[in-house]
Amino acid sequence: MSSVPGTGSLLKRVLIGRAMRSDKLGDTLLPKRIALPVFASDALSSVAYAPDEIMLMLGLAGGAFAVTHSWQVTLAVIAVMAIVVASYRQNVHAYPSGGGDYEVANVNLGPKAGLTVASALLVDYVLTVAVSVSSGVQNAGTVLPFVRGNEVVFGVVMIAFLTAINLRGVRESGTAFAIPTYLFMVGILGMAAYGFYQHFTGTLSSAQSADLTLLPEGGVDGVTGIAAAFLLLRAFSSGCAALTGVEAISNGVPAFRPPKSRNAATTLLLMGTLSITMMVSIVTLSQWTGVKIAEDPATQLVRDGRPVGEEYHQLTAIGQLSEAVFSDFPVGVVFVSIVTGLILFLAANTAFNGFPVLGSILAKDGYLPRQLHTRGDRLAFSNGILILSAGAAFLVFAFRANVNALLQLYIVGVFVSFTVSQTGMVRHWTRHLRLERDGAARRRMQRSRVINAVGATMSGIVLLVVLVTKFQHGARYAILAMGVLFLLMLAIKRHYGRVSRELAIDWETDKPVLPSHVHAIVCISKVHKPTMRALAYARASRPSVLEAITVDVDPDDTKALIAEWERREIPVTLKVLSSPYRQITRPILDYVRSIRSGNPRDVVTVYLPEYVVGHWWEQLLHNHSALRLKARLLFTPGVMVVSVPWQLVSAEGAEREWIDEPPIPGSVRGGGV
Amino acid sequence: MSSVPGTGSLLKRVLIGRAMRSDKLGDTLLPKRIALPVFASDALSSVAYAPDEIMLMLGLAGGAFAVTHSWQVTLAVIAVMAIVVASYRQNVHAYPSGGGDYEVANVNLGPKAGLTVASALLVDYVLTVAVSVSSGVQNAGTVLPFVRGNEVVFGVVMIAFLTAINLRGVRESGTAFAIPTYLFMVGILGMAAYGFYQHFTGTLSSAQSADLTLLPEGGVDGVTGIAAAFLLLRAFSSGCAALTGVEAISNGVPAFRPPKSRNAATTLLLMGTLSITMMVSIVTLSQWTGVKIAEDPATQLVRDGRPVGEEYHQLTAIGQLSEAVFSDFPVGVVFVSIVTGLILFLAANTAFNGFPVLGSILAKDGYLPRQLHTRGDRLAFSNGILILSAGAAFLVFAFRANVNALLQLYIVGVFVSFTVSQTGMVRHWTRHLRLERDGAARRRMQRSRVINAVGATMSGIVLLVVLVTKFQHGARYAILAMGVLFLLMLAIKRHYGRVSRELAIDWETDKPVLPSHVHAIVCISKVHKPTMRALAYARASRPSVLEAITVDVDPDDTKALIAEWERREIPVTLKVLSSPYRQITRPILDYVRSIRSGNPRDVVTVYLPEYVVGHWWEQLLHNHSALRLKARLLFTPGVMVVSVPWQLVSAEGAEREWIDEPPIPGSVRGGGV
Repeated sequence: MSSVPGTGSLLKRVLIGRAMRSDKLGDTLLPKRIALPVFASDALSSVAYAPDEIMLMLGLAGGAFAVTHSWQVTLAVIAVMAIVVASYRQNVHAYPSGGGDYEVANVNLGPKAGLTVASALLVDYVLTVAVSVSSGVQNAGTVLPFVRGNEVVFGVVMIAFLTAINLRGVRESGTAFAIPTYLFMVGILGMAAYGFYQHFTGTLSSAQSADLTLLPEGGVDGVTGIAAAFLLLRAFSSGCAALTGVEAISNGVPAFRPPKSRNAATTLLLMGTLSITMMVSIVTLSQWTGVKIAEDPATQLVRDGRPVGEEYHQLTAIGQLSEAVFSDFPVGVVFVSIVTGLILFLAANTAFNGFPVLGSILAKDGYLPRQLHTRGDRLAFSNGILILSAGAAFLVFAFRANVNALLQLYIVGVFVSFTVSQTGMVRHWTRHLRLERDGAARRRMQRSRVINAVGATMSGIVLLVVLVTKFQHGARYAILAMGVLFLLMLAIKRHYGRVSRELAIDWETDKPVLPSHVHAIVCISKVHKPTMRALAYARASRPSVLEAITVDVDPDDTKALIAEWERREIPVTLKVLSSPYRQITRPILDYVRSIRSGNPRDVVTVYLPEYVVGHWWEQLLHNHSALRLKARLLFTPGVMVVSVPWQLVSAEGAEREWIDEPPIPGSVRGGGV
Repeated sequence: MSSVPGTGSLLKRVLIGRAMRSDKLGDTLLPKRIALPVFASDALSSVAYAPDEIMLMLGLAGGAFAVTHSWQVTLAVIAVMAIVVASYRQNVHAYPSGGGDYEVANVNLGPKAGLTVASALLVDYVLTVAVSVSSGVQNAGTVLPFVRGNEVVFGVVMIAFLTAINLRGVRESGTAFAIPTYLFMVGILGMAAYGFYQHFTGTLSSAQSADLTLLPEGGVDGVTGIAAAFLLLRAFSSGCAALTGVEAISNGVPAFRPPKSRNAATTLLLMGTLSITMMVSIVTLSQWTGVKIAEDPATQLVRDGRPVGEEYHQLTAIGQLSEAVFSDFPVGVVFVSIVTGLILFLAANTAFNGFPVLGSILAKDGYLPRQLHTRGDRLAFSNGILILSAGAAFLVFAFRANVNALLQLYIVGVFVSFTVSQTGMVRHWTRHLRLERDGAARRRMQRSRVINAVGATMSGIVLLVVLVTKFQHGARYAILAMGVLFLLMLAIKRHYGRVSRELAIDWETDKPVLPSHVHAIVCISKVHKPTMRALAYARASRPSVLEAITVDVDPDDTKALIAEWERREIPVTLKVLSSPYRQITRPILDYVRSIRSGNPRDVVTVYLPEYVVGHWWEQLLHNHSALRLKARLLFTPGVMVVSVPWQLVSAEGAEREWIDEPPIPGSVRGGGV
């Protein structure tokens, strides 16, 4: 195993291209105009599905109900967003280190709270990929009819593509994020402006679904009282999907140009304003053009008294709007569809970038396998990326790429994280107020505390609403997943703690003792160059005793070996271990133990000549006895196992692949290397 | 990787039970009465499908054609079998070492011929499993109606079961084979005797299909001339399936009690007689009871002028016969069905036992990975078993457990092996005749040569017939598989040859040189017990230079480490390697190279403290940096890598699993350990 660098390297090359050189990332700190698209793609992209969700939920009570109430719900969502943005502007100032919600919760509310946030965020990364990809595929259906009905396949292909480019180690360059994000803004705001102009000049066309009647679910109209209130709350919960991704900037403060916190806070404000503007534009235009979104279009939408049936393909709100607004300008429809797909793709990619950053922090704190901590460790990230994409692909498959169904799971994690983090911020200010004496600073802190308290309360209420309205519809799965992750990470932490205590040195009693003798054994199967090198190295180490040993598996081979040994006059005793059962490992293990049991203070050094080959298939043909022997020797106390490598010609050049490591995703948003 | 003994051990326990202790197999040489069932199950079991195949093929030309010609074809098959048995009796005397056809071909006709035989046999092992399991499942359908229509599922389950018991390392005890084989003989011969008695007393019932009319395929009757001759040849080829497994005894001579060769020859004769008797009985009874077997029963079988349709379930010949003979004794039907299923199961198991024996011989000759050679090496056998069962399961799946379809692939390999081996025997006798001067011995050899020549000619003709009649129907896939294996094994042999030349020592020029200095480096990440042990061991080896190094990945951690190092007054210099990119491996590699480039005759010893844990999931949490570092260091010339293990508490007991190895399949038939 250990000496195969090129395992699957050919396949890897074919699939994900030649690895890129890891150039110096150095001082790639982001100006605001680049930071905005890098961090905001997730948040901005949610306007591609949040308005749809509001209309869809309200539509369960019929078209009239939807029209009357969609504004109220939208306003509530906007209010929450404004408060959350205001709250996070406080986080950014208080925690410029980029630990984000996890750090805030950990520092102020203790490790359990931090772990809760971490679990929620990890689940959310998986859902971000699933939701964004599903929505992107749905939007692609506007201009690409062949996607319709094959959403799952295209969704999984898209996830596979994202996985491939992230495994390849594409560096998130500012421009790669900036262009599509700005194009999306141009697309949506341009469409809105043109639509508003058309509306006021009376030339705005009607939407695809304007002449349809939206029946309430089950056909029963007139929802009132508690049922109506509950439906409004459900619509509100779904609309809060617009808030996902808002916290991204608070994780990325170190990546900003100085003054980091100020620039991050400004960018956060910009993002909130943009998000709200787009959201309002889409909802307004939807009302004007008569867009109708139904959970079950086939039965809920009625044309001339007859349900439209299965062949009706319901476009997204953005899709319907672009067709209405750009009815005389089809290029506009295609443009909006493409940029919407692109930004959703970027939003999904966000999770692939955010995961390593959070994973690294969690690993440093001992909640995840330690190797995730070292940012240079590619392999661990690859595993993380594969887990992330497998989870997302499973969700896309299990929920048939249905954005509405996936959203039932999505927002829980976000609001758990908001609530805990804002509560932590309140604690933060309270703690600091105890020490701060300066009046102006105190006033600023008090103001921040009020903002965070409002944020915490609001987030808590929304979380409660989300839990109540969505638990049955899917949120419980998300909660279950968070619970499992929470326990798993706790178990890992405890394991590390146990090991660490076991390994700790009690300097009073554990006096380091030098072994009295070194008994060296060189394992020999043939007389050839690797053997002779192992012998030479063993002799150079000047052990107290040096023996060569061979296991008598085949009497003819052994006889030949002894003859060769004597003919060459090799100046080391060759000891033959008998092996009645033709085993190799067992006799050597027994011999090593017999040495140790005679002299327990000795240490036994076992030299194993090992071939180093360049191809994985060559590895299948070599070293098995050596590796197996080594694995078992490690269980024997008082033994050192020395691998003496012999590099075969085929190994030349294979090493280079180890060295030219591609960059790690998330490096830009982590604030450079 | 290397220090996980218990990988999946829990799963393994659950699936395949606790591993058995490897007891002394010692002198378990087989008497004839046990050797017969051990080696003959494969050959005898073929009477469960060979008669069916003859009738089915002839039935393609209609029921009348089948009745008229089935005797002719059966006699031809019996003649071939008699000749093959006679030929192999010569092999057994000439090659008592058990190398079988591979050895005979290799010694007499050269390595390419041997490799041809080996490829054919390897393919045949896979087909033996697939055919026997499919036929067993088909036979089970006689008494278990729920199996009908689910043959693929039951077939794959049966293969999985065989895989599990062989992975578990069940030892083929004589009795385990003897009882079912003798019961099968009792069942078939008893049924035959009772049937014959009924026939001559006029009380024999008709078979299930006696009152059906068998239409020729496509409905056209009256095949004549070349078409009829071709059909007879096809039926003959299929009937030759009865010969599969005849060569098994010649592979197992070492397992016989002395006089080995004589006993083996007698057993071979016994087996041939039994096989022929059963075959004749089944064909005779089938004629008397009016059994009809159709390739496509739904359309070819007609009752009162109407096809029987899809709901007709065609029983095997043995199934139909047992129902006719035991029409008043249903227990007989169940008994015959069970013992037929059992012997087919044993026949499939034969391949699981034969594979390691052949694999071991091929590995010794360098055609397969070397680890297959050591019989004690469980892991390699496990891989072989998994490959074998995956191949068989694939075939069962791809051919829908259709015995008829699978048989089109099957017999090619057998007859390739027969023909090459018999040709080799002719060479063998010719060579020996050149040296032999004794008259009686010369006469014996000449007689043997004639028998083998007849055998070779006959096998060659049958092979030709099989190739011509079956190539289009599936034999080409078997040939393709053999070709691929042939080339693969040749490539492996060449690789070993190349490596061996590369490693060979030219004693004139390659004077072994002792390295002048040993520069020892101990990799440190923390001050704890494993680190201190590694330091103590390194110091005990008294290197010329000894340094501790650490990589500065996290400045805080490094500062803490240095402080601790100084506080504890550890008497070794601690060198800190800077790592601007937070990598671990790269700085160490660079440092090692810099030492070597200054003093190329030095050798660098890198000590790595390694944790040894007891569970695979613990392994996920440890040692990753060490393993990766080790993998890369091996590519650097002039480096020794020393693993200094630290056994954690959880590792205790985990080692025992390595030691208590279960027995290896094929040990009995290989002639004891």
